[in-house]
Amino acid sequence: MEQFLNINTIKFDKNGLVPAITQDAETGDILMFAWMNRESLEKTLETRVMTYWSRSRGKLWVKGESSGNTQEVRKVFIDCDEDVILFKVDQKGMQASCHKGYRSCFYREIDPDDGTYSVIAEKVFDPDDVYKK
Amino acid sequence: MEQFLNINTIKFDKNGLVPAITQDAETGDILMFAWMNRESLEKTLETRVMTYWSRSRGKLWVKGESSGNTQEVRKVFIDCDEDVILFKVDQKGMQASCHKGYRSCFYREIDPDDGTYSVIAEKVFDPDDVYKK
Repeated sequence: MEQFLNINTIKFDKNGLVPAITQDAETGDILMFAWMNRESLEKTLETRVMTYWSRSRGKLWVKGESSGNTQEVRKVFIDCDEDVILFKVDQKGMQASCHKGYRSCFYREIDPDDGTYSVIAEKVFDPDDVYKK
Repeated sequence: MEQFLNINTIKFDKNGLVPAITQDAETGDILMFAWMNRESLEKTLETRVMTYWSRSRGKLWVKGESSGNTQEVRKVFIDCDEDVILFKVDQKGMQASCHKGYRSCFYREIDPDDGTYSVIAEKVFDPDDVYKK
């Protein structure tokens, strides 16, 4: 797409992907981390709806397509090395980003003393209800 | 290290690395993004000082070693898939994470209309003064 020629400096890795960090525009919480190829980046900028590249499914992934928990782009940032993109978004739907039912994928804290995990957030939805078999 | 057996569930990629997102514990700003191997993760948890794996130099990288801008670990989080780690840190030294002299590596905003970049932060230090040739 011609209007996005300026993002040609972005360094996609040898798989054609860049890391995307998604941050809640209101709270500053990190909601999730995923990957984008050039097509998903262009689609995200064009539609203002977060569209990742699913490495496991090998296809474009409009976040919230099945759950309704879409993410609306508010601001976009590029890092110094031009190989990571940061998105500030409005989390729509049930206000949850994580397929496990939490607002953020980072719902567990690691204790640096012993490396144990503990859940530090409340579930927003029950994944069994949302992702029907 | 035996005390960190609990982090054995972490899924390092085929290069033995996991993405690490570093967030300012006070402001919630994303400071930087880098990679860790198991040794750098264990060293980070043990010393409470952010220690990444430098892919370009192929060695452990104690952030701030040359600039004095170390990062002290406050909290650590693991994502749902156990393949990304989030650190909340106190940025020490000149309060800058980026080798370009900015507080955050994400000092440029991408305009989603045309993909152009604009600098949205002030330089904290002059890299030429800090990283002597």
